[in-house]
Amino acid sequence: TIFVITPTYARFVQKAELTRLSQTFLHVPQLHWVLVEDSPHKTPLVASLLANSGLAYTHLHTATPKERKLQDGDPSWLKPRGAEQRNEGLRWLREDRGAQQGADSQQGVVYFADDDNTYSIQLFEEMRGTQRVSVWPVGLVGGMRYERPVVEGGKVVRFHTGWRPSRPFPLDMAGFAVSVKMVLANPDACFDGNAPMGFLESSFLQGVVTMEELEPKADNCSKVLVWHTRTEKPKMKREDALQAQGLGSDTAVEV
Amino acid sequence: TIFVITPTYARFVQKAELTRLSQTFLHVPQLHWVLVEDSPHKTPLVASLLANSGLAYTHLHTATPKERKLQDGDPSWLKPRGAEQRNEGLRWLREDRGAQQGADSQQGVVYFADDDNTYSIQLFEEMRGTQRVSVWPVGLVGGMRYERPVVEGGKVVRFHTGWRPSRPFPLDMAGFAVSVKMVLANPDACFDGNAPMGFLESSFLQGVVTMEELEPKADNCSKVLVWHTRTEKPKMKREDALQAQGLGSDTAVEV
Ligand SMILES: O=c1ccn([C@@H]2O[C@H](COP(=O)(O)OP(=O)(O)O)[C@@H](O)[C@H]2O)c(=O)[nH]1
Ligand SMILES: O=c1ccn([C@@H]2O[C@H](COP(=O)(O)OP(=O)(O)O)[C@@H](O)[C@H]2O)c(=O)[nH]1
Ligand SMILES: [Mn+2]
Ligand SMILES: [Mn+2]
Repeated sequence: TIFVITPTYARFVQKAELTRLSQTFLHVPQLHWVLVEDSPHKTPLVASLLANSGLAYTHLHTATPKERKLQDGDPSWLKPRGAEQRNEGLRWLREDRGAQQGADSQQGVVYFADDDNTYSIQLFEEMRGTQRVSVWPVGLVGGMRYERPVVEGGKVVRFHTGWRPSRPFPLDMAGFAVSVKMVLANPDACFDGNAPMGFLESSFLQGVVTMEELEPKADNCSKVLVWHTRTEKPKMKREDALQAQGLGSDTAVEV
Repeated sequence: TIFVITPTYARFVQKAELTRLSQTFLHVPQLHWVLVEDSPHKTPLVASLLANSGLAYTHLHTATPKERKLQDGDPSWLKPRGAEQRNEGLRWLREDRGAQQGADSQQGVVYFADDDNTYSIQLFEEMRGTQRVSVWPVGLVGGMRYERPVVEGGKVVRFHTGWRPSRPFPLDMAGFAVSVKMVLANPDACFDGNAPMGFLESSFLQGVVTMEELEPKADNCSKVLVWHTRTEKPKMKREDALQAQGLGSDTAVEV
């Protein structure tokens, strides 16, 4: 099983993002979607989307504390996003797997998939065989065409990145998967929501793996199968103007 | 068959967009993708993406004349995008269907699907029964939560839109489908690349249907099954800096 942990938060494009994401995941055999809302409660929009998705899933929620949340106008790099939600996903996974009997409970892979990226269905077949931590390129990230681990003789020897290649693991969240076994064997490994910019991935991976152990996938990290796309925030100028006249869109219509 | 006509153009996010789009279409039975590149020639990136997509497809191309193309810095509403490409798709369809024998060649539906929107797979089942022109809401378009035809007694009586409701067909490109029969019966109907902003859809629909004939879908136009999402243009600051030092990303890696 591939356990895909996705943080998500309410905004105009949320349903669109989750819709296209769920349609990608629907092509992947034995995928279990762990969708974690950044919210003090589960929302009906997400609950019914999951119920109608055709996917195996677990619906969780945990609100990012106010002081860790980006404020309007903050630059997006100021604070990491989704850290608490990924940790909540890990907590559930450790509890759920711990409750299962037998060797099967140790099987499987964990992938952290943000709700706005673009995933090729091939990516999931690449990660399925992960022993500890597997890695691959990510497109359109960090101000680059792509970032990737550089592989020599089948081993990761350094990283192609435009920024601080000396970070412990200069990898984007979308660029690695971890085996369930390693998640269970390292019960304290989690994401540090206070990590400085660019060190969130490292805060988790340092507790799980060494650079020498990384398993390169996607043809020795030569193929881009995931893209760090971002969706524009839609403008609502006309909606606001019509609403002021009492002629706004029907709020009973879910968008 | 649903013939989906999609204009597309080379840019950093193109492969990502076409990847997630193709994975959505792959869920839809009897879909034929007519992908039309805005380019003087077919590109290898698009050709190999189509060949590996698992979809039935036709690969076309036609370059938008320079004087009709948006220039860097132009506001995006200045000129319509994709008009020539949709017309090229219509030209191919009329020729291809004309060459088929029998009543079957008149069967099917045509939908104009931009490469950056988000489509629920349910949308395609809604449009499958189109007799002439079917219509439904579009989310996150025109500065509104959604735009939609307003239905009374099973008929479209007006349009909920934030701008010029008096346009002949104040509908977004993503908000209607046409039967192959009507496309063939009106051989001159096409998109006017010189149409003023907001009138591109009308330039085609006026030649095909009247408002009274519109067939409302998606529960009398009460459900949003397509979203006019737009993808951010990725920044390439670090790529440019590394390239200046001869350390840029390998151009042989397709992104
Ligand atoms: O307040 C927030 C902002 C973001 N996210 C989620 O965290 C992940 C990363 O956020 P985003 O895509 O905005 O980050 P970026 O694209 O800047 O890396 C996504 O799955 C978001 O849905 C969240 O849970 N709460
Ligand atoms: O120079 C261009 C710009 C856009 N398009 C295509 O035309 C459609 C509409 O363009 P876009 O999505 O940029 O328009 P908007 O989101 O502003 O409606 C999309 O399928 C694009 O890929 C194109 O063929 N050539
Ligand atoms: Mn993101
Ligand atoms: Mn668009």
